[in-house]
Amino acid sequence: MSTTTSTSTTPTTSATVAAPVVPTTGALTPLGLDEVRITDGFWADRQRVNGTATLPHVEHWLEREGWLRNFDLAAAGTLPEGRRGREFADSEVYKYLEAVAWELGRLGGDDALESRFRAIVDRVAAAQEADGYLNTRFGRPGQGERWSDLEWGHELYCLGHLFQAAVARERTSPGSDDGLLGIATRAADRICEVFGTDGIQSVCGHAEVEVGLAELSRVTGEPRYLELASLFVERRGTGVLQDIEWGRAYFQDDVPIREAEALRGHAVRANYLAAGATDIAVEHGDDGLLDALRGQWDRTIARRTYLTGGQGSHHQDEAFGEDFELPSDRAYSETCAGIASIMFSWRLLLEDRDVRYADHIERILYNVVATSPSAAGTAFFYANTLHQRTPGESSPDDEVSPRASSSERAPWFDVSCCPPNVARTLASLAAFVATSDDHGVQIHQFASATIDTVIGGEQGGRFRAELVTDYPRSGVVTVRIVEAPSGPVAVSLRVPSWADDAVVAVRPVDGASVDRAVAPGYADVERSFVPGDVVELRFSVRPRVTLPDPRVDAIRGSVAIERGPEVYCVESVDLPGGDEAIARIEVAEGVVPVEDADGRLSIELRARSLVDSTWPYGDTFVAAAADETFTASIAPYHSWAERGPSTMRVWIPITRA
Amino acid sequence: MSTTTSTSTTPTTSATVAAPVVPTTGALTPLGLDEVRITDGFWADRQRVNGTATLPHVEHWLEREGWLRNFDLAAAGTLPEGRRGREFADSEVYKYLEAVAWELGRLGGDDALESRFRAIVDRVAAAQEADGYLNTRFGRPGQGERWSDLEWGHELYCLGHLFQAAVARERTSPGSDDGLLGIATRAADRICEVFGTDGIQSVCGHAEVEVGLAELSRVTGEPRYLELASLFVERRGTGVLQDIEWGRAYFQDDVPIREAEALRGHAVRANYLAAGATDIAVEHGDDGLLDALRGQWDRTIARRTYLTGGQGSHHQDEAFGEDFELPSDRAYSETCAGIASIMFSWRLLLEDRDVRYADHIERILYNVVATSPSAAGTAFFYANTLHQRTPGESSPDDEVSPRASSSERAPWFDVSCCPPNVARTLASLAAFVATSDDHGVQIHQFASATIDTVIGGEQGGRFRAELVTDYPRSGVVTVRIVEAPSGPVAVSLRVPSWADDAVVAVRPVDGASVDRAVAPGYADVERSFVPGDVVELRFSVRPRVTLPDPRVDAIRGSVAIERGPEVYCVESVDLPGGDEAIARIEVAEGVVPVEDADGRLSIELRARSLVDSTWPYGDTFVAAAADETFTASIAPYHSWAERGPSTMRVWIPITRA
Repeated sequence: MSTTTSTSTTPTTSATVAAPVVPTTGALTPLGLDEVRITDGFWADRQRVNGTATLPHVEHWLEREGWLRNFDLAAAGTLPEGRRGREFADSEVYKYLEAVAWELGRLGGDDALESRFRAIVDRVAAAQEADGYLNTRFGRPGQGERWSDLEWGHELYCLGHLFQAAVARERTSPGSDDGLLGIATRAADRICEVFGTDGIQSVCGHAEVEVGLAELSRVTGEPRYLELASLFVERRGTGVLQDIEWGRAYFQDDVPIREAEALRGHAVRANYLAAGATDIAVEHGDDGLLDALRGQWDRTIARRTYLTGGQGSHHQDEAFGEDFELPSDRAYSETCAGIASIMFSWRLLLEDRDVRYADHIERILYNVVATSPSAAGTAFFYANTLHQRTPGESSPDDEVSPRASSSERAPWFDVSCCPPNVARTLASLAAFVATSDDHGVQIHQFASATIDTVIGGEQGGRFRAELVTDYPRSGVVTVRIVEAPSGPVAVSLRVPSWADDAVVAVRPVDGASVDRAVAPGYADVERSFVPGDVVELRFSVRPRVTLPDPRVDAIRGSVAIERGPEVYCVESVDLPGGDEAIARIEVAEGVVPVEDADGRLSIELRARSLVDSTWPYGDTFVAAAADETFTASIAPYHSWAERGPSTMRVWIPITRA
Repeated sequence: MSTTTSTSTTPTTSATVAAPVVPTTGALTPLGLDEVRITDGFWADRQRVNGTATLPHVEHWLEREGWLRNFDLAAAGTLPEGRRGREFADSEVYKYLEAVAWELGRLGGDDALESRFRAIVDRVAAAQEADGYLNTRFGRPGQGERWSDLEWGHELYCLGHLFQAAVARERTSPGSDDGLLGIATRAADRICEVFGTDGIQSVCGHAEVEVGLAELSRVTGEPRYLELASLFVERRGTGVLQDIEWGRAYFQDDVPIREAEALRGHAVRANYLAAGATDIAVEHGDDGLLDALRGQWDRTIARRTYLTGGQGSHHQDEAFGEDFELPSDRAYSETCAGIASIMFSWRLLLEDRDVRYADHIERILYNVVATSPSAAGTAFFYANTLHQRTPGESSPDDEVSPRASSSERAPWFDVSCCPPNVARTLASLAAFVATSDDHGVQIHQFASATIDTVIGGEQGGRFRAELVTDYPRSGVVTVRIVEAPSGPVAVSLRVPSWADDAVVAVRPVDGASVDRAVAPGYADVERSFVPGDVVELRFSVRPRVTLPDPRVDAIRGSVAIERGPEVYCVESVDLPGGDEAIARIEVAEGVVPVEDADGRLSIELRARSLVDSTWPYGDTFVAAAADETFTASIAPYHSWAERGPSTMRVWIPITRA
């Protein structure tokens, strides 16, 4: 069996861009996985692990837990007996298909993987009913009726992921005969009937179908899909779902999206909804909706986001807290919420070309997406706390973890949304590196990579470049032009918000080099490039000491260390006092970390000696003995919990006089 | 119908003490509701509201929600159709019966209330099955089988509350012909069969039956009940229940009780279990178990308790957090957990005569038990946050609140454990005021009250005294002796831990007054008293500024104000800036509150002017304008949220230079 994935050297047109989000309009045009390839470094390593370890791991567990077999049982007509997994188990299969589709696109084809992909599509196809309905949990004798539990049933949510998988496949393997796109459109046609203007006037408790429908509409050109997505977005917030213990804010059914001031409720739901609404607003040219979404993004980032870019401070309902309610030790910061926030932010970036969206995406990538999987790619954090108080328990390699917020990475969860979500994100990561517009290309994320695209539309020409960087180890990013259209072309490089000493240098093949100081934002270099010309961006990634807004109560009087895009942490395995010392460490005001020749950071800390009082409140707390002072290694947050159970904190209390 | 409650002026013997906990041994002997009567002041007011408003309110809602009618349906054999309420709804009826039993004891009888009590007992009796089994949720066709869901079914939990109700009735109305004690013993006999040595080797997911069985054993003299309670206590912690998402610590099935270091998991379950285990340890003279429980109490108070005495920092599982994980804004501090902690602490106090237990009970009474009910007694906090960030929604007077952690008091909840728990606690409150031993009486809680008991056993004699105090307004407590046995008698008065200037004065009818400085603990005055002698305890209740242990991260750099036993708070309705200002207020280091002639406190605060940054982390946060400084009223925490939706905080950030 051979792959139909495009391996031609001619870049695709925007209609078939091999990328997750392809709006018909916007400030920036995405580049596909065949246009940008990550070749080396931090993210190339993670993409390799994702492809060689995580994808087989996910498929193994989908099979082992019976979530794939649910489709076989549906086809055999024997359900509900033997059905395994939660109500949304189908969606994990679809997210895995999406991940494999991107991976095939990234690799430019792989016969064995293609064969595995098709085998699963066949099993899914066999489970689809004659009228297009597809779900292993509802609709059969002994199961709930179709659409009978919109609050919790996740039927539309599952279809949203099916649509995204079909979109990924069509964009990376246009016209493939595997049948996935047909499965998706038949299901989409079905729900257009059921939930259209004259249909059920409600929505799914978990947003996701909106983004799936919008993207499916883009791929197929079918306007009904976009219109149904729009109906879902506009209905929500009017109390169409039943009230629940946590309130209708949980599924964003409390306030219409045009009136909401911030993301709220379940953090994944909130971001998926916002991403889908952005797609609709862009396609409709709906400035009012776009402005509402921009405002919600602003307030959510300014008041409801952790330093890591993670979102969600309530374990109970996996939800946003109130403004500035960001406790480190109860940070939920679900991996999927981080990914969902990337989805929302990326759409706004394509529309607006505002660097803040790209800055936020980088923050999430390094501190949430890179944190979730283990170095080996076979265990995952579901929640990403910023303060681990007790070492917790190791999750055995071969057991499903019942606990989303376990303190160690686990191979699989009862609710296992995060592993395939990480897999699809890493497989498609090259699509987030760069974009183009009529004037040139924009580099949003730094990685050693190749770019090979066409700019300026039909009157334009081919643009090829090589990016080389060891970022985040250093802040030097080199863009070497391999081919460029004649005439002026703009190469724009993101200067991160914290880069206060950035310089962009142009080193032409012919002519003198020019260095220019540049402020955070996009540094544009516009000229007639010839092959061999180099644009270099340089900025310091020296460690920074970061303070919290005084309204973030939970980390008052503390500082965090950041270096480049990476948030750092203190882990007990690096402390003389071990686990218990995490509760007693402090850093003197003004102390900064020291970097050694290998780029490792250490910092001078003191461990307070505290009297073990019988009551933790009083008029004074005195030391039992002299405090210890020592120098401790600190490490990027994404690398924590790789050395056995440990305690950890991102925010370090300041010793005051 | 007349009451059989003892209204004689002869105190009962210890075998029939009209009090919630009557161990057969211990340092202190409890006094019954006929021996101590609260006559005036802070708690008398609350007892009156409890009797006249809360009890009718609870009965109204039990009827309205159909939880009482469940028993009628069971008797009619028509269940499960029409059954209302959660799986533990029966227990709310039993807690209400317990509350009424204490109220009848407190009042010395009340024909109308007695009649209502008996009517409910009759309905419960009719629902009991021939073999003694009693539960409206299990065991019938169409329901789960008996004991088929020990993790969540609450069958034994409900019986525990039935037993406590029967105990309360028998102690306040010995030998009553209402039949409640018989219902209880038949059910207890049944579970002795089912769960005994040769029976089901498991426990109930929610501890409570242990304390009920132990007390029922004390009332009936039946040793099998105590032994079953002991089996339940010893089995738990060995993994007899299924694992769940939150881990077996949720129902304390993670570690055997003798090996545990602190209370953990669901805070009500943890404290009920500890209370039951204390009963067993006391009756068995089991010093090992008692030491384990004392150690757990110590660590829980030192590291897992809010300033208010409240316990539980996780909303998700209504559970304790890790040591020092005590976020103000996510304080769950369930009302029932406070009451359960009183139950545990009171048992240790009776055994050990250690003042710390009484101090902690006072802290809970003023800051949790008094906080939960509205001034009118008809709406309740289920959770008791220490920091309300947004005004939240009012709970309508006539709707069940689906939200345990609603920001306003609500008349009733889907899970409505707290209202009847408050009711039984307030009705029986006099039993926690004083105790006796062979040498005299001990005053643990301060209230205007009468004491009328016999001390020194059969060789002793009658002791009568009048307590007069306007505590907590002042710290002056006067004990006037009305009658005392001949020979030396010790009157011991608790000196609270924070009372650093206490003086005890003896003002004999004959002879000179003597003043003596006394330290926190019990101040003993031993002498041959004659009628008219007065013992007076005086200490200052001036406002105190309280700091947190540095390990309580969430309130670092903040202070709280306490005055006597009351924790104070800043509420937005007292601030010029209103709701939003709560996030910006600070207090300068060293500032102390000022008390006016009416005892009201005010304090100088400043409201920071903060730039609304786009990202809440950075190298500096500068003011938008000059800060405002103003003087604001502060009020006891228990009185907050009585003036409409508001924001509030107990801990106030300190302005540092």
